[in-house]
Amino acid sequence: MRQVAVLGVGMTKFGISEKTNLEMFAEAGLEAITQSNIEPKDIEALYFGNCLGGFEEGQLHMAPFAHAELGLPLSVPATRFESACATATVATRHAALLVAAGVYDLVLAGGTERATTMGTSFATRTFAMASQAQYECPAGMTFPGVFAMAAHMYANKHGIPLKELKKHMAEVAVKNHYHGSMNPKAHFQKEIDVETVLGGMMVADPLQLFDCCPFSDGAAAVVVAEAGKARDLVKKPIYVVGTGQASGGPLYLQQDLTRVRAREASVAQAYRDSGLGPDDIDVVELHDCFTIAEILALESFGFYDFGKAYDAATKGETALKGKVVVNPSGGLKAKGHPIGATGAAQVTEIVEQLRGESGPRQVEGARIGLVDTLGGDFGTVCNIILRS
Amino acid sequence: MRQVAVLGVGMTKFGISEKTNLEMFAEAGLEAITQSNIEPKDIEALYFGNCLGGFEEGQLHMAPFAHAELGLPLSVPATRFESACATATVATRHAALLVAAGVYDLVLAGGTERATTMGTSFATRTFAMASQAQYECPAGMTFPGVFAMAAHMYANKHGIPLKELKKHMAEVAVKNHYHGSMNPKAHFQKEIDVETVLGGMMVADPLQLFDCCPFSDGAAAVVVAEAGKARDLVKKPIYVVGTGQASGGPLYLQQDLTRVRAREASVAQAYRDSGLGPDDIDVVELHDCFTIAEILALESFGFYDFGKAYDAATKGETALKGKVVVNPSGGLKAKGHPIGATGAAQVTEIVEQLRGESGPRQVEGARIGLVDTLGGDFGTVCNIILRS
Repeated sequence: MRQVAVLGVGMTKFGISEKTNLEMFAEAGLEAITQSNIEPKDIEALYFGNCLGGFEEGQLHMAPFAHAELGLPLSVPATRFESACATATVATRHAALLVAAGVYDLVLAGGTERATTMGTSFATRTFAMASQAQYECPAGMTFPGVFAMAAHMYANKHGIPLKELKKHMAEVAVKNHYHGSMNPKAHFQKEIDVETVLGGMMVADPLQLFDCCPFSDGAAAVVVAEAGKARDLVKKPIYVVGTGQASGGPLYLQQDLTRVRAREASVAQAYRDSGLGPDDIDVVELHDCFTIAEILALESFGFYDFGKAYDAATKGETALKGKVVVNPSGGLKAKGHPIGATGAAQVTEIVEQLRGESGPRQVEGARIGLVDTLGGDFGTVCNIILRS
Repeated sequence: MRQVAVLGVGMTKFGISEKTNLEMFAEAGLEAITQSNIEPKDIEALYFGNCLGGFEEGQLHMAPFAHAELGLPLSVPATRFESACATATVATRHAALLVAAGVYDLVLAGGTERATTMGTSFATRTFAMASQAQYECPAGMTFPGVFAMAAHMYANKHGIPLKELKKHMAEVAVKNHYHGSMNPKAHFQKEIDVETVLGGMMVADPLQLFDCCPFSDGAAAVVVAEAGKARDLVKKPIYVVGTGQASGGPLYLQQDLTRVRAREASVAQAYRDSGLGPDDIDVVELHDCFTIAEILALESFGFYDFGKAYDAATKGETALKGKVVVNPSGGLKAKGHPIGATGAAQVTEIVEQLRGESGPRQVEGARIGLVDTLGGDFGTVCNIILRS
C-alpha cells in the first residue's frame, strides 16, 4: 500500500444557507482544489456524500451533478456514499483506500447537506430514517431518545447521580461552544455557561436543548493524493496513517448502550493500521451529536477507562491546552452538523490543526489527530487518523 | 493488482414482493454466500446498494442493517452506494477494486429495491429525482421523456423514418420478452409480439408501454474474492477482468442524446483494463430501460457503427444464437428493474452464463461477458467485464 496524504481542504460556513447542496459542495470543493495547487481536470475520482437530498431538494443522484458543477472530466467517476452522519468520513476513507491501492493518484472526497429548511420536527423524523426504521421508529426511538437512554444507563451503570452527570454533560456543551466561539465557520460562535444548558428546554430526558447538536446546512471537501505527489504539490501534506470502519447494526443487537462496540472495532482497526494508540493522539474531532455521546466516545478510544470520562470536560482535560483536545472546531455541537458533510469537516479541522493554521483555537504542537464519526444510532462508525 | 473472481451469486425472483428490502437482500445475500461455500463470518466487507428505501420504507441508512440480517461480524464495514440505476454495479465494481488492491480478500456486494408499491405515477416522479432534478424536473424531463427525445433525435440524425424505427424498437422488446420467458426469476415470463408493442398505451411519444421497463421489487448479491482464494472455494470462479465508471453530468451538458458519452468513456476503461474489445464479447447484460436505450448502448460498445444498431434485434443478431447475445436474462424490460439491485442481477446473469448454467437461455460457448448499467439520464455509467 502506498502512503496517502491530504493536500487541500475546504468548507463552507456552517449554519443556515440559501444555497443548494450542489452550490455549497462546489464552493467547498473548489476551495480544496485551489488549496491543493491543482485544477479540476487533475482529479481522477469524486467520492461524494449526501444523505437527505432526495427529501430536501428532490435530488437523489447527486454525485454526477456535483462532478459537473466542479467541471471534472467525463471519464472521472463520481460515486455517492450514504452512511448517515458518517457519510463523508466513509467517502474520505474510500478515497484514501483507493489512492493507497494505486487505483487513483488524486481524489476529491467530501459531502454536502441541507438540513435547516425542513424544520425541527420534520427533521427529527427524517433523521430517524437513519435508525432501523422498521423497528425503532414505531417505538419512538428517534436519536435524542436513544442517547437519552444511553445517558440514563451510563449514570446507572457507573453509579453517578443523574443530576451530577447532567452537570458534567453541560460542561461538554460549554467547552464545545467555547471552541466554536473561535471558529469563524461555526454555526454557533457564542459562548454559553452551564446554567444556560441546565435551563434549556427538555428534549428527551435527561437531554436538554443545549445537550443536542443543531441541524445545519454546509459542505466540506478534501483532496487526497499519493504522498509523493502530495509533497510535490503542497508545502505541508498531512498524512492519512490509519482508517477504520465497522457496523453495529440495529439497537436490538446492542448489548449495552454505554459502549458503542462498532466504534471500539473501528478505532482498533485505525490504531492497528497506523501503529498508534490512544496516548499518541493530540487532537480529536469526534461525534458529539449529544453531550453524552462525547463522553462515550472518549472511553471507546481508550483515552479513559469505561465510566471515567464523564468529568473530563469539567476538569478541562479535553479543552484547548488540555491533555487531549477534543472538538477544537466546536464539534457538531457548536460548529454544526450538516449530516453528509460532517466527516469531511472533521478531517478539515484536523488537517488545519496539524498544519498549525487554526489561529486562536490552535492546539499547540499537534502532530497526530483522530477523526471519529458515528452514523445513525450506533449503525456505522468510521475513524481516520492523520499525522503531520 | 491482484486477480479478482466472482464466487457465488444470488437473486430473488423479480416482480411484486411482500418482503422488505432487508428481507429480500438477506435472501439474495445468503444464496450468494452459500453458493460460495463460505459462511457470513468469512465476509470482510459489505458493499450495499439501494436507492429509494428512504421514500419507500422510511429506511435510509440500510447498509448496517443488511449487515445485521446476514449475521456479519461487527468489525465488517457495511457501506451504502447510490448511483441511481447503476447503484449495484458501482457497489460491485468497488468490491472488485478493493479486493484487487488487497484491502479485502472476500467481499459481498449487491443491492435491493422495492419500487412497485409506490404506484406508477408516484414512482415516475420519484425516479425523476435521479435526474438533475433542479433543472430537469420542472421542465417535465422524466426518464420516458428523455429517452423519447433520444429516439426522435436518433431517427432524425440517421434518416430513419420514425415509423420504421418504432418497429425495430418493438423488436427489442419482443426479443427481451422471449429471453425472459426462459428465466424463472424474471418479472415477466411471457412472450409478446410486435403488434402488442405497437398497440400499447402511449407513454412519451414515440415510447409506448412495452418500450418501457417495469418497476420491480427484488434483490441480488455477488461474492467477490481474490482469485486464488476463489479457486480454493468453488469449482468455476468467474474472473472480473475489467471495470469502468464515468459521469455524464446533467442533460444540459449532453451534446447529443444519441451518444451516451459517459458510456463510451466507461466501456473504454473496461476494455483497456481487460485488454479486450467489442469483438471479444459473447454475451451482454445492458441497460434497456427503454427499447431505444438498448440500441444506443450497442453502438457505444463498438458492436455497431453509430446509426447502425437500430435493426440488430429485427435481424436476430442480438437474440440467443445471434452474433452477440444481448440481455439473455430478459433485460430490464422482461426480467424487471428493481433499481438498486439491477447491476448485481446483471452480474448474476453473466456469471451463470459463463458457468454454462443458464438452461434453455444458455448462450452456447460463452466465455466473455459485459455488464452495462446507466444511472439516471446519462449521469452515471458503470461497466464490468467478466471471463470464465
